[in-house]
Amino acid sequence: MIDEPICNEVWDIAHLGHVEMLTPKPDQSLHFFTQIMGMSVTATQGDSVYLRAYDDYEHHTLKLTAHHQAGMRHFAWRMRSPQALQRRVKAVEASGLGIGWNEGDLGHGPAYEFRSPDGHLTELYFETEKYQCGPHDQSALKNTASRFPARGINVRRIDHLNLFAADVRAFRDFQLENLGGILTETIVDNLDDLNPKAVWFMVNSKSYELAVTEDHLGMRGRFHHVTYAVNSREEVLIAADICLENGIFIETGPHKHTIQQTFFLYVYEPGGNRVEIANTTARLITDPDYPTVFWTLEERKKGQAWGLATVPTFHTKGTPMP
Amino acid sequence: MIDEPICNEVWDIAHLGHVEMLTPKPDQSLHFFTQIMGMSVTATQGDSVYLRAYDDYEHHTLKLTAHHQAGMRHFAWRMRSPQALQRRVKAVEASGLGIGWNEGDLGHGPAYEFRSPDGHLTELYFETEKYQCGPHDQSALKNTASRFPARGINVRRIDHLNLFAADVRAFRDFQLENLGGILTETIVDNLDDLNPKAVWFMVNSKSYELAVTEDHLGMRGRFHHVTYAVNSREEVLIAADICLENGIFIETGPHKHTIQQTFFLYVYEPGGNRVEIANTTARLITDPDYPTVFWTLEERKKGQAWGLATVPTFHTKGTPMP
Amino acid sequence: MIDEPICNEVWDIAHLGHVEMLTPKPDQSLHFFTQIMGMSVTATQGDSVYLRAYDDYEHHTLKLTAHHQAGMRHFAWRMRSPQALQRRVKAVEASGLGIGWNEGDLGHGPAYEFRSPDGHLTELYFETEKYQCGPHDQSALKNTASRFPARGINVRRIDHLNLFAADVRAFRDFQLENLGGILTETIVDNLDDLNPKAVWFMVNSKSYELAVTEDHLGMRGRFHHVTYAVNSREEVLIAADICLENGIFIETGPHKHTIQQTFFLYVYEPGGNRVEIANTTARLITDPDYPTVFWTLEERKKGQAWGLATVPTFHTKGTPMP
Amino acid sequence: MIDEPICNEVWDIAHLGHVEMLTPKPDQSLHFFTQIMGMSVTATQGDSVYLRAYDDYEHHTLKLTAHHQAGMRHFAWRMRSPQALQRRVKAVEASGLGIGWNEGDLGHGPAYEFRSPDGHLTELYFETEKYQCGPHDQSALKNTASRFPARGINVRRIDHLNLFAADVRAFRDFQLENLGGILTETIVDNLDDLNPKAVWFMVNSKSYELAVTEDHLGMRGRFHHVTYAVNSREEVLIAADICLENGIFIETGPHKHTIQQTFFLYVYEPGGNRVEIANTTARLITDPDYPTVFWTLEERKKGQAWGLATVPTFHTKGTPMP
Repeated sequence: MIDEPICNEVWDIAHLGHVEMLTPKPDQSLHFFTQIMGMSVTATQGDSVYLRAYDDYEHHTLKLTAHHQAGMRHFAWRMRSPQALQRRVKAVEASGLGIGWNEGDLGHGPAYEFRSPDGHLTELYFETEKYQCGPHDQSALKNTASRFPARGINVRRIDHLNLFAADVRAFRDFQLENLGGILTETIVDNLDDLNPKAVWFMVNSKSYELAVTEDHLGMRGRFHHVTYAVNSREEVLIAADICLENGIFIETGPHKHTIQQTFFLYVYEPGGNRVEIANTTARLITDPDYPTVFWTLEERKKGQAWGLATVPTFHTKGTPMP
Repeated sequence: MIDEPICNEVWDIAHLGHVEMLTPKPDQSLHFFTQIMGMSVTATQGDSVYLRAYDDYEHHTLKLTAHHQAGMRHFAWRMRSPQALQRRVKAVEASGLGIGWNEGDLGHGPAYEFRSPDGHLTELYFETEKYQCGPHDQSALKNTASRFPARGINVRRIDHLNLFAADVRAFRDFQLENLGGILTETIVDNLDDLNPKAVWFMVNSKSYELAVTEDHLGMRGRFHHVTYAVNSREEVLIAADICLENGIFIETGPHKHTIQQTFFLYVYEPGGNRVEIANTTARLITDPDYPTVFWTLEERKKGQAWGLATVPTFHTKGTPMP
Repeated sequence: MIDEPICNEVWDIAHLGHVEMLTPKPDQSLHFFTQIMGMSVTATQGDSVYLRAYDDYEHHTLKLTAHHQAGMRHFAWRMRSPQALQRRVKAVEASGLGIGWNEGDLGHGPAYEFRSPDGHLTELYFETEKYQCGPHDQSALKNTASRFPARGINVRRIDHLNLFAADVRAFRDFQLENLGGILTETIVDNLDDLNPKAVWFMVNSKSYELAVTEDHLGMRGRFHHVTYAVNSREEVLIAADICLENGIFIETGPHKHTIQQTFFLYVYEPGGNRVEIANTTARLITDPDYPTVFWTLEERKKGQAWGLATVPTFHTKGTPMP
Repeated sequence: MIDEPICNEVWDIAHLGHVEMLTPKPDQSLHFFTQIMGMSVTATQGDSVYLRAYDDYEHHTLKLTAHHQAGMRHFAWRMRSPQALQRRVKAVEASGLGIGWNEGDLGHGPAYEFRSPDGHLTELYFETEKYQCGPHDQSALKNTASRFPARGINVRRIDHLNLFAADVRAFRDFQLENLGGILTETIVDNLDDLNPKAVWFMVNSKSYELAVTEDHLGMRGRFHHVTYAVNSREEVLIAADICLENGIFIETGPHKHTIQQTFFLYVYEPGGNRVEIANTTARLITDPDYPTVFWTLEERKKGQAWGLATVPTFHTKGTPMP
């Protein structure tokens, strides 16, 4: 249990940087992300294709890598400054979970690697290559990273990541103690025994950047989903039509989450990974000492905001750590 | 002046069928309608390409024909039945403006041609070839004419036509007397002298299918614009972004018209013709004896619904009768 | 089975006029319709309150009557003309189901009463009292029936009615043979045995005005729901929040129907009747010989458009004929 | 000219706290904010009424004070921590523009006062009274500060403040040097002489919290507008209708700003102050070293995003420093 406010001084993470997704069907997955989601390819190297949404400011937010099975190889946090990076590396090293520095990848500089208590491979980095659009994809508005594609779902930017964990408590404590941010919402067994079943971490003013939920199969280090944002709920509804029209499996939604109030649509990309298209931006938190909202399992029986039952696969279907 | 209710028994026109648009830049115009508007080509013949929006049920609603200058060659009304067609042909013949029957065109059967009092070439037809989608463009929902394209503006269906007329009164009287329908709204000089400056005709439950507005240059038979509908105002806003991003000239909008309350966006297609993208469907009229709404020129000085001044080119910029 | 096109010449019904809803909790029901739905009271007489949405053009579209139990006492069709009314009365009389003329009610003139084959009390009328707004509720736009209320859900107009029937086939045949219109969509057992389980009737350009679905309890003459329309899907989503915030039971939705593509939200008003808030207007049908879309029970197993299972109460929960 | 990146380590301001608006028509202004905007009264004291939007987490975000003329008496920044507050007070004191501490007000603790270089009275505070909803206004979702009102425009939260300044450069330099944050966008004379005409400051992940634009009348310390946010562009459009229906003067919009891409509607509240209703949240900036976007006066001649000319009063109409 978090029994005191998170230190407001620790805002060292800037945002979720990117996710490396593994797919056994690389061509079909690439088609999904480019033609259905409306993303663009920045680079290709080895078995990986680097992609971004039209308003992602970095070189890529999705690294799609061919593999014998679906899953997530790693994800990365961009830090607020070189100093912030050094502070967090020091903390992670002290925790004993650190691995060490790599030389970076296409699009970003050196990154420090570690595994979460549940095993997820994670990177911290600061140096990044900001996307430079060219004549073919320059937006008419200079404050947009590249041109609105007018293709498929037209996702705007990476929004958040959801991981499964066998031990949610361990993940939560590690995250808050070593990386900072605020626990904005959490599901607990009950209010007497605050055993966490799910946690949502905020690192900027978006009400969450990472969610970690209990893996009912008890497996370690699994991936739940990555979310790309569109600008309106109407576009989430249109996304549902586009998925329907293109044979993309819709797991649940569109509907509004009780927790975080995200207007969600969950689908499976052809490789088997869950992807969410969402409109989350109405929910901003600028209160620096925001008190965590606790939800009990009893309260969660009401389902999502307007009464939709949470789909059972939400607690069991994940893709494994490679 | 219409001094008595239009006979409710004359509902012989079903809807606006199609428009033949002339363009001096056929390749660029075709690119606009397919890639920006999101329409599809059904057929090509001679100098013409036949296009439809994804939920247009007929073979085409736009015939795009190469010509040395922009403009409209003809437009067509689909009638409610063979009997309705015969009744209206008889009326038009009696008016003296009839031309005679043609053999039809790709996508529809024999049509009766006439010129409006202002000179616009008009067709009446009933027999039509309904669009048959194939495996490549079949919608997942059988009640949609073809698959949502997820490309560009994704216009859904043809909505209405706007013509310029040198003599609005003559057009109005001809239309109501010979073709039926209801005059739902009109602009008049003032309420003492009900000289019409603009008229809106309803033939089904959409509050208008044809608008005729006064040509301030006094030219005859000019084309003002054709409108394609999207499903929401949000999509009109997105359409504005798509036009901005693709260098399509926006003349005015998005904004809400005072008259008919259409949420509009006016652009020029590359050939020089005005095209509207609009969301009109909130405004249905099912009252069979709907009383015409009169607007005076004085009232129209308030501009559009939320105060936007009507753009001056709206009264002067048109494309000519060939 | 309908084995030939419905005669296009029979378009005598203009639209659904009004519904008389019975409630055992009149004060709470009235609060729901005025404060949650955003409707207004036009008149009160006896045990009845007469209500309308802000853009309903008639005196009322809902007559709310106190009764010992929930249900529908009658509903009414407005006809296109006095002649249309006479033609349909003659047909109904010939069918043997006619009752006779009443003197009308507040807001409309004489009405001809009959019972549907399933027992629903139905009225046909033409003479109506159009709503006259006053200084307190006049819209800034003369083409709106009264001012946008900015209260609650802000429903715009009555949209359609859904009835249960023990014998759907009998209802369907009666309706098409005597009242006209088109059967736009239908659910059938299978395509070999076209036994109807549900039918949707169109009488103008809205794709349906009346739906009749099979009562799985086999009861006769029950009421399923009445629907009020808002202008956008976004407003349906907001309506869901308003219901959630005010303790109004949400049965299912928001989601998109496969059939008719209505974006729906179903709730129960405090008296126990089902009410739908919907955005239906994207789906217009102007094709006068629209071919009926057939859905088999097998196809319907896919649920609603984006995969939501149809809620079981949809087939059993209705309110009785008084 | 800002010739080096703003230090990323200074993120001491949490967000805009509140604005004290002066009105010569207190009853009418209060009606506007409660009935049209949909805000609620938390307290009344002396000549002031304290108001908040339904999801504002503090006691108030608007203090409405009766005065002989319109204007802004002060605005306030909430800081991220007591330490952050102390750091910024120290910096402001060193600048020579500090005034000193006050004892706080209803809803917040001690505040440090100073005047901007242009004269605007400003407060810095940390201690705040978070709004505690009661049974009458508790939301069904615990992560909302209070119940969605379903009244008027239903603004959700305070969004940003816009001030006029006679000397924009002085304001900009003072703000960045003493209070931190990032200059996300700016208008300059031209790219050779980077004389600022307007500046936008970001302090969290919303792309701006304060805008300062040049006062073409050369007056000092004037108020331009305060903005409240709604959740969607559709709700901004509905807000325009509500203003139209209630005789609230619309100055310009709805349209999309080129700078910051805000979907805006500008109105005057009855006391004469400009108020904006906007949807801004699609534009988040999480890049901690976001490079300032420069716009030249030449570029600004294109008007707003879709071509609407900036209304001339935008540069001259403001309400004075008391």
